[in-house]
Amino acid sequence: MKKFIIINGPNLNLTGIREPGLYGDTSFDDYLPLLRKEFPELLIEYYQTNIEGEIINKIHETGFSYDGIVLNAGGYTHTSVAIGDAIKSVSTPVVEVHMSNILGREDFRSQTKISAGVKGVIAGFGMNSYRLAIISLLSV
Amino acid sequence: MKKFIIINGPNLNLTGIREPGLYGDTSFDDYLPLLRKEFPELLIEYYQTNIEGEIINKIHETGFSYDGIVLNAGGYTHTSVAIGDAIKSVSTPVVEVHMSNILGREDFRSQTKISAGVKGVIAGFGMNSYRLAIISLLSV
Amino acid sequence: MKKFIIINGPNLNLTGIREPGLYGDTSFDDYLPLLRKEFPELLIEYYQTNIEGEIINKIHETGFSYDGIVLNAGGYTHTSVAIGDAIKSVSTPVVEVHMSNILGREDFRSQTKISAGVKGVIAGFGMNSYRLAIISLLSV
Amino acid sequence: MKKFIIINGPNLNLTGIREPGLYGDTSFDDYLPLLRKEFPELLIEYYQTNIEGEIINKIHETGFSYDGIVLNAGGYTHTSVAIGDAIKSVSTPVVEVHMSNILGREDFRSQTKISAGVKGVIAGFGMNSYRLAIISLLSV
Amino acid sequence: MKKFIIINGPNLNLTGIREPGLYGDTSFDDYLPLLRKEFPELLIEYYQTNIEGEIINKIHETGFSYDGIVLNAGGYTHTSVAIGDAIKSVSTPVVEVHMSNILGREDFRSQTKISAGVKGVIAGFGMNSYRLAIISLLSV
Amino acid sequence: MKKFIIINGPNLNLTGIREPGLYGDTSFDDYLPLLRKEFPELLIEYYQTNIEGEIINKIHETGFSYDGIVLNAGGYTHTSVAIGDAIKSVSTPVVEVHMSNILGREDFRSQTKISAGVKGVIAGFGMNSYRLAIISLLSV
Amino acid sequence: MKKFIIINGPNLNLTGIREPGLYGDTSFDDYLPLLRKEFPELLIEYYQTNIEGEIINKIHETGFSYDGIVLNAGGYTHTSVAIGDAIKSVSTPVVEVHMSNILGREDFRSQTKISAGVKGVIAGFGMNSYRLAIISLLSV
Amino acid sequence: MKKFIIINGPNLNLTGIREPGLYGDTSFDDYLPLLRKEFPELLIEYYQTNIEGEIINKIHETGFSYDGIVLNAGGYTHTSVAIGDAIKSVSTPVVEVHMSNILGREDFRSQTKISAGVKGVIAGFGMNSYRLAIISLLSV
Amino acid sequence: MKKFIIINGPNLNLTGIREPGLYGDTSFDDYLPLLRKEFPELLIEYYQTNIEGEIINKIHETGFSYDGIVLNAGGYTHTSVAIGDAIKSVSTPVVEVHMSNILGREDFRSQTKISAGVKGVIAGFGMNSYRLAIISLLSV
Amino acid sequence: MKKFIIINGPNLNLTGIREPGLYGDTSFDDYLPLLRKEFPELLIEYYQTNIEGEIINKIHETGFSYDGIVLNAGGYTHTSVAIGDAIKSVSTPVVEVHMSNILGREDFRSQTKISAGVKGVIAGFGMNSYRLAIISLLSV
Amino acid sequence: MKKFIIINGPNLNLTGIREPGLYGDTSFDDYLPLLRKEFPELLIEYYQTNIEGEIINKIHETGFSYDGIVLNAGGYTHTSVAIGDAIKSVSTPVVEVHMSNILGREDFRSQTKISAGVKGVIAGFGMNSYRLAIISLLSV
Amino acid sequence: MKKFIIINGPNLNLTGIREPGLYGDTSFDDYLPLLRKEFPELLIEYYQTNIEGEIINKIHETGFSYDGIVLNAGGYTHTSVAIGDAIKSVSTPVVEVHMSNILGREDFRSQTKISAGVKGVIAGFGMNSYRLAIISLLSV
Repeated sequence: MKKFIIINGPNLNLTGIREPGLYGDTSFDDYLPLLRKEFPELLIEYYQTNIEGEIINKIHETGFSYDGIVLNAGGYTHTSVAIGDAIKSVSTPVVEVHMSNILGREDFRSQTKISAGVKGVIAGFGMNSYRLAIISLLSV
Repeated sequence: MKKFIIINGPNLNLTGIREPGLYGDTSFDDYLPLLRKEFPELLIEYYQTNIEGEIINKIHETGFSYDGIVLNAGGYTHTSVAIGDAIKSVSTPVVEVHMSNILGREDFRSQTKISAGVKGVIAGFGMNSYRLAIISLLSV
Repeated sequence: MKKFIIINGPNLNLTGIREPGLYGDTSFDDYLPLLRKEFPELLIEYYQTNIEGEIINKIHETGFSYDGIVLNAGGYTHTSVAIGDAIKSVSTPVVEVHMSNILGREDFRSQTKISAGVKGVIAGFGMNSYRLAIISLLSV
Repeated sequence: MKKFIIINGPNLNLTGIREPGLYGDTSFDDYLPLLRKEFPELLIEYYQTNIEGEIINKIHETGFSYDGIVLNAGGYTHTSVAIGDAIKSVSTPVVEVHMSNILGREDFRSQTKISAGVKGVIAGFGMNSYRLAIISLLSV
Repeated sequence: MKKFIIINGPNLNLTGIREPGLYGDTSFDDYLPLLRKEFPELLIEYYQTNIEGEIINKIHETGFSYDGIVLNAGGYTHTSVAIGDAIKSVSTPVVEVHMSNILGREDFRSQTKISAGVKGVIAGFGMNSYRLAIISLLSV
Repeated sequence: MKKFIIINGPNLNLTGIREPGLYGDTSFDDYLPLLRKEFPELLIEYYQTNIEGEIINKIHETGFSYDGIVLNAGGYTHTSVAIGDAIKSVSTPVVEVHMSNILGREDFRSQTKISAGVKGVIAGFGMNSYRLAIISLLSV
Repeated sequence: MKKFIIINGPNLNLTGIREPGLYGDTSFDDYLPLLRKEFPELLIEYYQTNIEGEIINKIHETGFSYDGIVLNAGGYTHTSVAIGDAIKSVSTPVVEVHMSNILGREDFRSQTKISAGVKGVIAGFGMNSYRLAIISLLSV
Repeated sequence: MKKFIIINGPNLNLTGIREPGLYGDTSFDDYLPLLRKEFPELLIEYYQTNIEGEIINKIHETGFSYDGIVLNAGGYTHTSVAIGDAIKSVSTPVVEVHMSNILGREDFRSQTKISAGVKGVIAGFGMNSYRLAIISLLSV
Repeated sequence: MKKFIIINGPNLNLTGIREPGLYGDTSFDDYLPLLRKEFPELLIEYYQTNIEGEIINKIHETGFSYDGIVLNAGGYTHTSVAIGDAIKSVSTPVVEVHMSNILGREDFRSQTKISAGVKGVIAGFGMNSYRLAIISLLSV
Repeated sequence: MKKFIIINGPNLNLTGIREPGLYGDTSFDDYLPLLRKEFPELLIEYYQTNIEGEIINKIHETGFSYDGIVLNAGGYTHTSVAIGDAIKSVSTPVVEVHMSNILGREDFRSQTKISAGVKGVIAGFGMNSYRLAIISLLSV
Repeated sequence: MKKFIIINGPNLNLTGIREPGLYGDTSFDDYLPLLRKEFPELLIEYYQTNIEGEIINKIHETGFSYDGIVLNAGGYTHTSVAIGDAIKSVSTPVVEVHMSNILGREDFRSQTKISAGVKGVIAGFGMNSYRLAIISLLSV
Repeated sequence: MKKFIIINGPNLNLTGIREPGLYGDTSFDDYLPLLRKEFPELLIEYYQTNIEGEIINKIHETGFSYDGIVLNAGGYTHTSVAIGDAIKSVSTPVVEVHMSNILGREDFRSQTKISAGVKGVIAGFGMNSYRLAIISLLSV
């Protein structure tokens, strides 16, 4: 049985409440069961934290034994050299996801400091971005 | 029956030959039948051109009647304001794809001039990027 | 009889349909007869293309014999060194027009790569920009 | 009877004397009667000052009751956030004019800090820029 | 018999007419026979186009079978990522030429987007740049 | 009795009329009596001008004898080295105020050229910014 | 009874010890009772942490039920997109405070990444900045 | 008898009072008689204003009949395109002076917007800069 | 007995595993006993965390009583104003170390936001950088 | 008999030893006799120095009497305004050569400070660059 | 008897020959006797070199015993941190001179790396710049 | 017996005299005997020059036979591509040293053009930086 983890970074615990025009009004807690249901053959773990270093801790913890990491680093995407280093330090493939189309938003949001080591990037499909990331990891 | 078009920009006719370390050694002509086979219920048209303005022509032509456009604008991604304008001019959703992880490559390749109007971006999964784009468009 | 040509660049074939809040809802095809009617003593030719190099071809073709060129290079305005070179290569005066006020829009739209050789620039008056350009060329 | 005002900024009182190769050798005082004669049905007021704040005063004074303002802010075009704010504060449409083609000159002259709120820009036609501006305001 | 192609980009069809102070007053059509005469043992094909994508087409077409490509991409030199990609996609060595000394001209002209994959660059020798390029390719 | 002066710069005479969504619809003339009423023990002088140099004049005039200056330099905030120099030239403490939150607006508005010498900055509280500035000066 | 919270970020636990020339020699622990005494009708909670993500946690925790947040994010002010996102995610008004005049200090300190969503900014008044922030929130 | 004018810009009326560590403690009013005494054969007029446009007015007024202008534009040196234009508009030679060594101070003070048209620049010699400027103009 | 602490930041717990070509294949846990053995007269404490704020906590905790801090802030070196502030807040000398030669790597890695307050920097000597730092602190 | 000089700048004495993957393994001392042999009718002098000012000395010394200078300024190419000035000071044509394709290398190597005054640039052909430069000078 | 030295940097040995339109046609050797004649009471030594380090040597040699140094560092003005350091290392006042008005020329020429430590700058007066520098040093 | 050389660049001959607040008041001549005494088993050669090219000469001379080079390139650190190239051209390891903490000083001093090829960097420890460099080279 393949093991994946979805790591959500800062403010993503407020999805569904926070700027619904931009991020939709579904909370991740509502979405996760649907996602797990679609892939019953997979173990999909979930972790959310607002603390940059805890994202790194979790990447280290899962990055040598899991089959894939789906990472939405939220605001740290644009500022964290340290998370970028963590991704390059582990062997598990990491797919970067964003609910909004970051490449089409404000200037600073189209710059990412974590992408050099990721397998790929999926952005702009709302909750569906997570699902596409899972599918992409299935064919690695 | 849903109608999609895949538009490939400059140098993508050489996929499989060009820098195989970066883009793989499968040609798009080999890949397309596999993709169509996976989605027998869809009409997946294909178009490739090296000419910027012909990409615009094709977006205009399909952008009011098709159900989705999968666009890999190649090198024009980083320079073409005009293609970006074309995307914003039509009503069909456009998904931007890249085989390599452009956000993790040279500086100028992480800048895109066409993304403001696209539905979303998928980059880094080789040929699989196109498949993920089709899947993403199915749930628009 | 004086001979002028209006050259429209990429996406301007969609005027009237494309972002009407910004560009109005009149198509150029509807506007052209009105313009010709106002200047019955002039020959006003019209050409539209989405291809950068065809704009250059047309500038070369008319740039030594016509009395004036009215050029709306659309998105190429901000990226095309080659069109800028073409304008400097010919002897016919070229007037650059824009329907929207490009100097008051996004940063990249206030930069133009084609203006060094033009006679003048008229921007912000919708379709009327073309008419003002014709008038300006009459007093060259 | 429609009421317009032409506001000329710094150094434009020297037109005809100052750098004639660039700005021509006609003074504005010679040009104004010709302009008024061409539009006998209009009231065309004229004001020149070298003081930035007096341009703002005049925009405030006329900007709620006149039918149009033709503004050549001279060197303040490239530095004055305050004039730009004044334009956005009033309801009368403002057309920005320049005698030389500022978009084709030195780098700093192609940047304008006042254009975000103007109706449109006309540049490069010498004294004729003012006449085109009047015409443009007639069809607002 | 060795086969070379000279590819000339936008506005180079006007050489001899266009800004003769900068580019000389000989047309390329006059120069080509002289060049062929100097190298009777070589096949020197010639192609000119103003369309960016057609330069790419021609590079693809000749880039696997010819012995050398001499490329003057004109204004596209400074803007075309796509031509730069085309050069890197083929196996034939490409020598970039310019008639004027682009490194000593305006800022934007000293930047090139196509040079990363070329064999070498020759600039500043007028028509003679092409001849030096042919000589350089003979000793590859 | 403590003496303060409020100096308002360009376009602030239009407060209440100008972009009410951003600056509110109360005029400063309506607000001032309320402010004076709240601090009956203070002399609160008021001065408004659209002319940069007159702001400097007023700072010089009051800057050695008053107990505090509340300065809203409007658009000059972002461009005036000379006002910044004036503030550093006098001994009276100057508090910089803005009605809107300049640090959260357009890029150029978050840059200030006058702040190096001020006591402090208060921005974003509409008319209330002036009141907070008075309170801040009372405890200097 | 209105409920406020003061959130202090990194190194602010050392106030009174750290660079006293710049930040004064009163500790926040000494100041807080005085502040509470001045506003006996208010509940003023206090929280300090050096961890970026814990600031976000606290904003989430209080940002839907408190009447105001006074935030001094210390060094994170200039680097944290994530805190800026947190502020925009909640409904309680946030006032940004700084003891020193950040707009008049080193270049990097005059840039803030958290201000786009705050109600307003108060900087330069030492401990008094907090008091002014409380006053500002009382009139929201 | 040769006629010169010294034009002093903003805040220079406070010389002797303002930042004496940087600008010395002699006022210009004390210095001027000494300067006139050293050059009894010259008419040395003096003008000071804090208003940018009045500097332009004075340059226009004297710039066609005087033998030399000594200009210390103070803070406008670094921001005024309009004063730079005025200098280029007149025929009298203008020498730019500064009391402090602007090239060795903060970054923004080493940039000048007015120097393109001046005869020369003298900076760093305190009051003596004016005297050197007079001497320099005597040998034009 | 002198007391030192070595503080290791993000991802340094993976040293020996992470990018061994760049950082070597010895883990810090293997290295530390050797280091302590070389300096038996010293107390060398060790702390590692991936959390930015915990680095600050530890600097505060040891920064008034220890004889030296050896800090490798990892990826936070290039982004953390807050750690830089912490260093300036304490009295114990801090030596910044890096295993790789950060000044000779990617652009963003040669910028450090924490160095203004450190005693010195040692970079490029692998594990030996820590030993050199201890030696350097012995002669402070 | 025509007289040329080849001037080699810093580190070029190590050619053949230094980074052979980039610059080849032939030393210039081995190459020079071959070059002279190919052009027996020419006097080809040779000079190498690591000192910037000695390159200038040699340009002065030969720049009024020789028929051509072939200059490879090595690392000074990217930093020396003074050598650029020297080239513009003399009448002998100077051709700039580089063994590697500097336009396709690191960013700072594609900038040259010496090219404004050279006749032309030849880069990327290894030792052959010198030979092409000699040929180019023969047809000046 | 006061002792001064004039130090001329690169290419200034060619004054009178080099770009006479910009630098005049008098050589420094012709000028020096005139200068010495005007100041018979002074010892005015002269030194010219094209080598950056020799300028530093000479500054060291004279910088503790002479009464003044007049330095025209030529092209090194814009690039030499080391000469700037030398000036700050000595006690003799250094006056920076330029024959042309460097502040009004190309962008890179208006930047100087040597000015932070000089007494003052005199630029734009041709040979007369040296004379003004001597006068300025007499009143230090 | 191991052979090392210490190469000191511009102005370092004045150490002890030059800006003692920043660089201390010990001269290198006083320090060197102490250093040699601490390492009696080593041959420590010493060389100082103010001339950039002579640093390169010395690197070439010792860079293939010595066991280590300790290089303090002074002001050339920030400007010399040529010294950086020299370091990469030789096989002896080079350690870059600075007495002051260059990473914590002015912006331009935190940029180095010579570090890409060095073994490591040691900065901020005064004379002790040299000693640490020797120690570092002993364990290469």
